[in-house]
Amino acid sequence: MELLKQRIQRDGLVKPGNVLKVDSFLNHQMDIALFEEIGKEFQRRFSQDGVTKILTIEASGIGIACIAARYFQVPVLFAKKSQSKNIDGEVFSSRVESFTHGRIYDILVSKKYLSEQDRVLVIDDFLAKGSALEGLCKLVEDSGATLVGAGIVIEKGFQGGGALIRGRGVRVESLAIIDGMDDQTGQVFFRD
Amino acid sequence: MELLKQRIQRDGLVKPGNVLKVDSFLNHQMDIALFEEIGKEFQRRFSQDGVTKILTIEASGIGIACIAARYFQVPVLFAKKSQSKNIDGEVFSSRVESFTHGRIYDILVSKKYLSEQDRVLVIDDFLAKGSALEGLCKLVEDSGATLVGAGIVIEKGFQGGGALIRGRGVRVESLAIIDGMDDQTGQVFFRD
Repeated sequence: MELLKQRIQRDGLVKPGNVLKVDSFLNHQMDIALFEEIGKEFQRRFSQDGVTKILTIEASGIGIACIAARYFQVPVLFAKKSQSKNIDGEVFSSRVESFTHGRIYDILVSKKYLSEQDRVLVIDDFLAKGSALEGLCKLVEDSGATLVGAGIVIEKGFQGGGALIRGRGVRVESLAIIDGMDDQTGQVFFRD
Repeated sequence: MELLKQRIQRDGLVKPGNVLKVDSFLNHQMDIALFEEIGKEFQRRFSQDGVTKILTIEASGIGIACIAARYFQVPVLFAKKSQSKNIDGEVFSSRVESFTHGRIYDILVSKKYLSEQDRVLVIDDFLAKGSALEGLCKLVEDSGATLVGAGIVIEKGFQGGGALIRGRGVRVESLAIIDGMDDQTGQVFFRD
């Protein structure tokens, strides 16, 4: 998605340790006009898949998922990162390792909101080593719903998560795949 | 907002301890068509206030804020609940007590995204005792931006947060104010 790549080139900041900061438009401050273009592109790519529900994970996936859901006209379900009083009853859960935050946590969704009749599109802002996406896919599989695929805004192609998840037969559509970054020059190298 | 009150009556679940569960449409599974009506209503109420930015807090405020932002055509900024590698540099911070989750945490926004030129509308899903909203208002005040007010989806009027924040001179617009609930009958009593 050319508009997204241009935005990453213009406003993304490359930091040591393969960190790409896009918090001016994607995951802290959020550019809703850009999110609308992202949502349209996801809808274009998954328009033939009969999506009935979008699944994402708190926190930074929620905004993109909600804007995308307008184009699919389906509800959004977000996985929560820890047990809270607001989810009771039975849940589907999965364990996720966050390399960004350096911790392991459980993700949960209420069993009430995923069923065998659902055709689920998973949406998230980033795909790096793939632990969060793997966890989300497992929630869908455990529910008996059909996983139609994953829509990712930025995939760090050199961190292996995309290859891992695609290798398991999941369709992953990433709008920008980064093959490398140079924190000396600030350059970002996209896959064609 | 009549549509919202009807939805709360129909799909909200009253639990012991003054808990109102609305996770089928508001804060776990999210009904985007309803969010659009909520967003329009916030825009109607704050249309004369020259809003330049919407501020919310992770996680359940984000979806509502992003959909509302479409009608204001402004960016959304979400306060994060703990320090992470994705926010570096200077931050505005504030301490918040969550009664739902039984813990105290810091909320943070990068100083880069709030300035004296901003006119900020705070949006959140719930207002109960007011700690989160108070923290968000403090972030705005610390930044020197103008706080135009707060847009709240559901206010638990009997828990005092609304009175507290309004008493400090902040304009709080809540789309449904609940004065009481009965967990025996499931009834929800709205303020007129």
